[in-house]
Amino acid sequence: MKAVIIAAGRGERLRPVSKEKPKPLTRLLGLSLIERVIFTAREAGIREFVVVVGYRGEMIKGELGDGSRHGVVIEYVENPRWQRGNGVSVLAAEEALSGERFILLMSDHLFEPSVLTEVMGLSLDEEDSLLVVDGDPGGHINIDDATRVLVKDGAIVDIGKGLTEYNAVDCGIFSCSPGVFDALRKSIDRGDETLSGGMRWLAGEGRLKAHEISGRFWIDIDTGENLKRAEEMLCRTLIKPTDGVVSRYLNRPLSIRISKRLVETGLTPNVISLLSFLVCLASALLLSAGSHLGALFGGVLVQLSSILDGCDGEVARLKFRRSEYGAWFDAVLDRYGDAAVVLGLTYGWWSHHGGHTVWLIGYIALLGTFMNSYTAIKYDPIITEQRKAWRFGRDVRSLLIMAGALLNQLFYLLVTLAVITNLVSLRRILVLRRARAVNAA
Amino acid sequence: MKAVIIAAGRGERLRPVSKEKPKPLTRLLGLSLIERVIFTAREAGIREFVVVVGYRGEMIKGELGDGSRHGVVIEYVENPRWQRGNGVSVLAAEEALSGERFILLMSDHLFEPSVLTEVMGLSLDEEDSLLVVDGDPGGHINIDDATRVLVKDGAIVDIGKGLTEYNAVDCGIFSCSPGVFDALRKSIDRGDETLSGGMRWLAGEGRLKAHEISGRFWIDIDTGENLKRAEEMLCRTLIKPTDGVVSRYLNRPLSIRISKRLVETGLTPNVISLLSFLVCLASALLLSAGSHLGALFGGVLVQLSSILDGCDGEVARLKFRRSEYGAWFDAVLDRYGDAAVVLGLTYGWWSHHGGHTVWLIGYIALLGTFMNSYTAIKYDPIITEQRKAWRFGRDVRSLLIMAGALLNQLFYLLVTLAVITNLVSLRRILVLRRARAVNAA
Repeated sequence: MKAVIIAAGRGERLRPVSKEKPKPLTRLLGLSLIERVIFTAREAGIREFVVVVGYRGEMIKGELGDGSRHGVVIEYVENPRWQRGNGVSVLAAEEALSGERFILLMSDHLFEPSVLTEVMGLSLDEEDSLLVVDGDPGGHINIDDATRVLVKDGAIVDIGKGLTEYNAVDCGIFSCSPGVFDALRKSIDRGDETLSGGMRWLAGEGRLKAHEISGRFWIDIDTGENLKRAEEMLCRTLIKPTDGVVSRYLNRPLSIRISKRLVETGLTPNVISLLSFLVCLASALLLSAGSHLGALFGGVLVQLSSILDGCDGEVARLKFRRSEYGAWFDAVLDRYGDAAVVLGLTYGWWSHHGGHTVWLIGYIALLGTFMNSYTAIKYDPIITEQRKAWRFGRDVRSLLIMAGALLNQLFYLLVTLAVITNLVSLRRILVLRRARAVNAA
Repeated sequence: MKAVIIAAGRGERLRPVSKEKPKPLTRLLGLSLIERVIFTAREAGIREFVVVVGYRGEMIKGELGDGSRHGVVIEYVENPRWQRGNGVSVLAAEEALSGERFILLMSDHLFEPSVLTEVMGLSLDEEDSLLVVDGDPGGHINIDDATRVLVKDGAIVDIGKGLTEYNAVDCGIFSCSPGVFDALRKSIDRGDETLSGGMRWLAGEGRLKAHEISGRFWIDIDTGENLKRAEEMLCRTLIKPTDGVVSRYLNRPLSIRISKRLVETGLTPNVISLLSFLVCLASALLLSAGSHLGALFGGVLVQLSSILDGCDGEVARLKFRRSEYGAWFDAVLDRYGDAAVVLGLTYGWWSHHGGHTVWLIGYIALLGTFMNSYTAIKYDPIITEQRKAWRFGRDVRSLLIMAGALLNQLFYLLVTLAVITNLVSLRRILVLRRARAVNAA
């Protein structure tokens, strides 16, 4: 299915932020608003876009190009009358569509990809159009600005900004039958050039269904305040339900702050993984000096590397650049980094005290650390949320290493690591054994 | 769907092997023939069985019980007239079926589970029955004994042992409509008490379809020679297409010999995994002595452990006891075993020569060994068959360790391991990176 994106407006109220740029090019966490809309739709499986441009359309074309850079096809339609209602912009797209059903999106409405996946999965009557609505919008929606809708039995019976009787608001995401163009023409003929005008016509004919998404992420960005709010909401999605306590309350708040800067730099997630790995190597070198000063700085860098370790994934998610390879590459680098740190601790203590005991313990700590990562592959998918919070993962291990290094207790730190990591691995083997018993029963 | 298994006969020609037991209880690689048939059907998703017993039926009931031990339900039907044709045995099952379609199997016909999965996936006319046939049976089928069939346009037009015009043989696997019982009665009334007689009746009415499986594993076991042949064929299936050269030409031939004995012992695959792990630990202890004698015995035990490492999977497959947990448990033990051996080599050399260099190298060898296993999880599924043959896996590593230990060159062995394993891991990261590039293009 093709998607039409309306990107013709100027965005008067965003001018303090967007300056001379057209509204769709307003930056938010490293991407323009229209890029966010396109990438969201791409994640839902849409590959062909018709972008209706108006105000400073050349700037938008210049930034997006033909879409090939992003693995999509973008066709542009000009609406020289962009200062009139947005219904005129939608109508301008008619010729670019071959009479097929299409998805209609606004360049200033952000939402999560699953909403669109759902809409595309619904089976609609050929003549019906559909509007995504929110029956319980959060505080981030200014109800005075919102287009209100009245839904009865899954169909929209009225729509408009000034509605006094309403039970939901318009989220700016549509699945349109080609009949929408006739409705728009009739509405424009009667003097209403807004998209809502056309939709009201369809609603009057009983041809506009509603799809409810209350509680899900979506936002209409009209003001600088909305933009700030959207940034907060997007950052909040970066906290994974699987994050343990150290991740959630210590690392994540810091890594998100760093990621907010990193998204602007153009560094790819894999380069950020490498960066975190290099910090880890540096910490291993400092620890290997065996001095208290080395341990102090090394310990802090271990924890810093652990924080940076969250940034690659965060930047990937914020910029729609997640990849299976990227996640794996990060995991592989983490294993090398883990090994370097344990080696640094071992060598650091040995260089001052000698003996082979510390090598033996370092070896066992490395074995345990590795087995934690190896068993995690099977263990993580089966454990409960509650267990995940207290999971002994890389976040906890790094914090433990920092604490031991700051106290300059490298030997006891290695002993602790050797004992805990191996016990944790053993426990996981037993948990998985039990889980199998449960499955078989 | 229920499956009816005909297990009423005495199996005159197998008596030199089966002795006083009824034919279905003849042992083959740790299981009786009827257990193999039941487990094969269970793998194809069948949970309810009707077993028709005759000769020494009590022995069969005693051995299989109600099936709960194997996660299935077994109901028994007695055919006191088992010395008459096998059509009489099939007819005896009628009351145990509630007029539904059923699968009909012979307790002396073995086949691969996928054949039955296919048959159950075919959509047949309600009145049609179906017989699995082989249009190009291998040398293991004695064509003089086989029931011959003449297939035209996917339907069987004639069936019988004495057929002169035929183009396939009967594999003893049926999907039967309830109409098969009427056909059997008619055939018996006319004096033909064989199952083929009933089938010929159905064929005459155009109600017997054929499903061709030439090239797949199946065998009819009537003689001791057939039984030997079946054993060979089952063992051949244990060679995985993913086995590398060392596995295929050295380890597998030996491990299969050992597995043939192990299936008779009742040891579970997980216990065999533990056994292989203990041998690995013993080899590590011997290597850690650092003497030439220790290295000699240790090296041989490493290779023995590597051979035994194949047996758990082989026994699991031969006894239908494969499990995801079992495969994982084996992999986890292998990682601990790998670590123990590298540690044994390191300690062995250090105890005679001292210094920390060997510890550093041992540490890096452990890191590389681990990263080989860690990267294999993503790497193995994407590589080509050809690459798999030359894959640097545990089989090659163990052989290398044995060679180094026999030559008493523990230090250079560790250096070699440290270099090769890490280079292999690095190469895999690059291959996976390229593979991703290919996928994205």
